Amino acid sequence: MNKRIEALAAQLALNGLDWMALNPGPSLRYLTGLNFHLMERPVVFLVGHSGQVKVILPELERAKVANLPFDAEIIPFGDDPATWQGVYEQALFKISGNPLRVGVEPTGLRFLELNLLRQALPEAEFVDGSAALAGLRMCKGTEELNAMRQAAIIAQNALLNTLESVRPGQSELQISGELMVQLFRAGSEAELPFAPIVSTGPNTANPHASPTNRTLQEGEMLLIDWGASFAGYFSDNTRTFFCGEPNDEMKQIADLVEKANAAARLGGRRGMPAGEVDQLARGVIAEGGYGEFFTHRTGHGLGMEAHEPPYIYPGNPLILKPGMVFTIEPGIYLPGKSGVRIEDDVVVEDEGLRSLTDLPREVMRLEDFLARARKG
Amino acid sequence: MNKRIEALAAQLALNGLDWMALNPGPSLRYLTGLNFHLMERPVVFLVGHSGQVKVILPELERAKVANLPFDAEIIPFGDDPATWQGVYEQALFKISGNPLRVGVEPTGLRFLELNLLRQALPEAEFVDGSAALAGLRMCKGTEELNAMRQAAIIAQNALLNTLESVRPGQSELQISGELMVQLFRAGSEAELPFAPIVSTGPNTANPHASPTNRTLQEGEMLLIDWGASFAGYFSDNTRTFFCGEPNDEMKQIADLVEKANAAARLGGRRGMPAGEVDQLARGVIAEGGYGEFFTHRTGHGLGMEAHEPPYIYPGNPLILKPGMVFTIEPGIYLPGKSGVRIEDDVVVEDEGLRSLTDLPREVMRLEDFLARARKG
Repeated sequence: MNKRIEALAAQLALNGLDWMALNPGPSLRYLTGLNFHLMERPVVFLVGHSGQVKVILPELERAKVANLPFDAEIIPFGDDPATWQGVYEQALFKISGNPLRVGVEPTGLRFLELNLLRQALPEAEFVDGSAALAGLRMCKGTEELNAMRQAAIIAQNALLNTLESVRPGQSELQISGELMVQLFRAGSEAELPFAPIVSTGPNTANPHASPTNRTLQEGEMLLIDWGASFAGYFSDNTRTFFCGEPNDEMKQIADLVEKANAAARLGGRRGMPAGEVDQLARGVIAEGGYGEFFTHRTGHGLGMEAHEPPYIYPGNPLILKPGMVFTIEPGIYLPGKSGVRIEDDVVVEDEGLRSLTDLPREVMRLEDFLARARKG
Repeated sequence: MNKRIEALAAQLALNGLDWMALNPGPSLRYLTGLNFHLMERPVVFLVGHSGQVKVILPELERAKVANLPFDAEIIPFGDDPATWQGVYEQALFKISGNPLRVGVEPTGLRFLELNLLRQALPEAEFVDGSAALAGLRMCKGTEELNAMRQAAIIAQNALLNTLESVRPGQSELQISGELMVQLFRAGSEAELPFAPIVSTGPNTANPHASPTNRTLQEGEMLLIDWGASFAGYFSDNTRTFFCGEPNDEMKQIADLVEKANAAARLGGRRGMPAGEVDQLARGVIAEGGYGEFFTHRTGHGLGMEAHEPPYIYPGNPLILKPGMVFTIEPGIYLPGKSGVRIEDDVVVEDEGLRSLTDLPREVMRLEDFLARARKG
């Protein structure tokens, strides 16, 4: 049994769960290093409270589990979906019969796997088991933090190489295409945390904009929200720039967002509830008179998923502990005009929060940002 | 109401469904053009059998649905997960009470959304509604086929530009990194259908290999399985190459796989059951004495998903119709030695199957392939 599976088994017992049923994704990769395509085939990995493991997977993936460094019962299925239910029933026959509590990941397990499991274990209760996994994954170890720092460095290099060629007249899609090229050139793994957001002018006022054919113009904002991937871990940052000369309102919201980012980043510490970090940022923006234009939470946890616990929203009582990593990304969005967001990834340390990013945070003209960043 | 939503409403009635509940993904994009991040927030889009639409989504995504070209009731929720169940109950209050059949996508809807819906609609039955959607999405229209052809062209250009720089001594990861760069340079959208598979030597015998640090050597096979994305549609091809001089066994399996690909590609036609196309390819490999080393189905449907109906597996009775698009990708995998796969994307036409790819299929030395492909 490997250490992480052992730790999960202990968490299952603590959380009153008999089994955990996972499909391919970050938690499975965290526990075992195994990475499967998640598509139409119902791959399920089961861990029992005493550490026993069952893997139900397609015949053609069998090579991937041929030399696992832990004991596991491997149950393969073929290409005809009509046979899958039977394979599941056979695989789970031995554990059925008792009243069972099976934990699942609400954002992982799909109707497909849930239905196969339900019919194979008609007396089992399927419940949200994410607390057991968050207990393992939320606080990062040294190796994990090194990977996240590396992802941040890759992302920084990619951004700077992209900005070198950004000019007014280029479209959001052109800029985001070049950024992706630079991310892979800089060493990002294939699976980015998300497709980069590149927005210009009024589009910056939509926090979740997708890049369009709109072109960047002098006197506008440019917002880039992007991340890289390294050894299965992600980075996630946002920087906002002036293209040419900003107007007063743009300068004002840029200044406020920068202060809000600093307030949370410098004021947050271990032992504090997550909601208080949110309030540190939110308070600055509210005092500046733009509270209603900061329309989202201050941040989200980051690791093998682009969004994972801890979530930094108003009133969240979750206590911050060393090793937790989350974003601090306050923003102000003025519909039809401009938006600003400044996002860092921070790790909770004994002394406070440490950002994994070296890039300047201040909203500057593109050329000034590049000059400042290159100087270090 | 837009035409596709109207068509779905009609399919719901035919399939005995009162509502369809979708989360973000290809079907939602197909119906509405809407593209959301699928993460920890439970975005759900409901379509009723008379075409009514409800959208339950985060407050910060509201801008995306501000000007929908069809009537929809928008129900936003905030950042605190504790409030979500209440929002769902309020949103669905009016449709509850009756015995309801709600269709979902088994590979789409997650435990998260299912649980919120179940508690909000305690008397509803949630069932596999994928037939209603497949009825719309499986046969592609002209515009969709044009997008798929464009994705194939982008992928071809990216492959050729990558192969120019492939040399013995490069690692699988180096080659796949360069291929991704070339995919985006050639115009692929951000979301690739899957991370490219680049495998060398004995790794080619694992059909779902992930690229590693292993380096390509003279006298080995190189296998590349890759795709591009355009306007939301995918391509998915595989080509296998000799690096230097192959041995007799490599030539033999290459020859058989090429013949199997041709048999299915040239022999398949409308009105034939999907399983018969599988048999056309499988028969060639079995007759050649390698049947047990062709360990997967002959193909899968392709479109806005990398794998979607129709699936081309032994015995599948589904009848092929004009407009369906699927892969033909027979392979032979000799564990510890080499593997070959040759994959085309084909569209069912009145006269037979037409491949969307122009690249040569024959397994050749890298330099010969490049010369042949560049000549057209």
